[in-house]
Amino acid sequence: MEPYTRKVQYYETDRMGVMHHSNYIRWMEEARIDFMDRIGFPYVRMEAEGVVSPVRALSCEYRKTCTFGDTLSVSVTAESFDGLKLVLRYEMRNERGEKVFTGRSEHAFLNREGRIVRMDRDMPAFRAALEAAGEQS
Amino acid sequence: MEPYTRKVQYYETDRMGVMHHSNYIRWMEEARIDFMDRIGFPYVRMEAEGVVSPVRALSCEYRKTCTFGDTLSVSVTAESFDGLKLVLRYEMRNERGEKVFTGRSEHAFLNREGRIVRMDRDMPAFRAALEAAGEQS
Amino acid sequence: MEPYTRKVQYYETDRMGVMHHSNYIRWMEEARIDFMDRIGFPYVRMEAEGVVSPVRALSCEYRKTCTFGDTLSVSVTAESFDGLKLVLRYEMRNERGEKVFTGRSEHAFLNREGRIVRMDRDMPAFRAALEAAGEQS
Amino acid sequence: MEPYTRKVQYYETDRMGVMHHSNYIRWMEEARIDFMDRIGFPYVRMEAEGVVSPVRALSCEYRKTCTFGDTLSVSVTAESFDGLKLVLRYEMRNERGEKVFTGRSEHAFLNREGRIVRMDRDMPAFRAALEAAGEQS
Repeated sequence: MEPYTRKVQYYETDRMGVMHHSNYIRWMEEARIDFMDRIGFPYVRMEAEGVVSPVRALSCEYRKTCTFGDTLSVSVTAESFDGLKLVLRYEMRNERGEKVFTGRSEHAFLNREGRIVRMDRDMPAFRAALEAAGEQS
Repeated sequence: MEPYTRKVQYYETDRMGVMHHSNYIRWMEEARIDFMDRIGFPYVRMEAEGVVSPVRALSCEYRKTCTFGDTLSVSVTAESFDGLKLVLRYEMRNERGEKVFTGRSEHAFLNREGRIVRMDRDMPAFRAALEAAGEQS
Repeated sequence: MEPYTRKVQYYETDRMGVMHHSNYIRWMEEARIDFMDRIGFPYVRMEAEGVVSPVRALSCEYRKTCTFGDTLSVSVTAESFDGLKLVLRYEMRNERGEKVFTGRSEHAFLNREGRIVRMDRDMPAFRAALEAAGEQS
Repeated sequence: MEPYTRKVQYYETDRMGVMHHSNYIRWMEEARIDFMDRIGFPYVRMEAEGVVSPVRALSCEYRKTCTFGDTLSVSVTAESFDGLKLVLRYEMRNERGEKVFTGRSEHAFLNREGRIVRMDRDMPAFRAALEAAGEQS
């Protein structure tokens, strides 16, 4: 799957002169949304069908800095999905191919009442989309 | 009315070394929410009673910069309220009393269906709270 | 000049269900940076040559809401430039062509010591780039 | 040590109706800055003496949601400090005392040239401040 690319914006830098560390977490979300578009199961569709997918846990490492004007490539891969919890991995590289950032996020699936959704039973098309994408890559 | 005070956070600065101009707009909102708390009509109450108050227009001038570690005082005053539209003015000063920023915002009042609410008829306590605060100041 | 296009991100929405009003100010900056790239005078070049261009004043009107998943087109035009102050205008439209937002920003030009730069004398290529772009559009 | 307290702002919520997960990372920074103030070694002093302290790694768990109007208490504790790397832990609780969020951050110390600073040799007052605070708590 082609990585998501994004330019660092001026408002994303801080007075250390580099992109503020909190913004990578937002980029993880952007890349995740893009990932869902690419596997053919857009997040807007999931929400429209009554399921939201909050972040349960995050971890990340900052390897190199980047700043205004840099463009990063963000690759997203599904590490695991057991029907209740999805784990995604992220890798961001700069234009010289250097690893800038690695991250990992865990997601639950909830209905409008905040109850856990059993995705394999209630939204089987999601696993199908994930697996089809995994086979292609 | 006592001004709202707030320290500039590191993540609010940019690589010019100063608070990014977009964050003042967020501070206007913080000070507005605080203003509503102080006049005794918290925004959470307004929302709970089914009214939201979107920003219709903004304008502002940036007079001086501020940066991480600075504390600003934000004063809010009601310029006008005709029952449909509220206009607020903001002034931010640094610890030396220098004017850093002035702003103005216009707000409408909508119900859950997105229709305009006639505040004087449907939520008269709001004008009462505004006027009581105006007389005190 | 082709408008700058941008998708609304999830983290840009608020609990009213729409893009938070402060984020349009950040989009104005993104579109302005893109505008400078397109006229052939990237902001990174201006900074590298020792000039920064802080925002002095802003004003804007919010016409319609937008939310996660929407794509907006942002057009930027130079309203005036007298060698000391640049005024830009912005118009954002949704995919149905409806006007969502209009804005205006004023910019000064400062050197590393914070002194005003006379652009026509010290960086004449900037006006040349602006005018060449204006003639094309 | 008394926890850092902070109200959730409207602009920090997203259309799921709760504080967006990226903002907790910013709150970690706010609480860390406050922690340094309280131990008597403000971050502005560290920067003024030529040392910056970038985040090297983060991890966190989201236990409960919070939203506009909620106030969280953030406690920060030093897990370890070996003179080169500082590890901090964070716990956020809501007004009912429920654990909302736990986090961990790792920090390096660099000089203006981006080289690693040996804090025990070059800035011994920092360990002294950390230890004095640890003994009090």
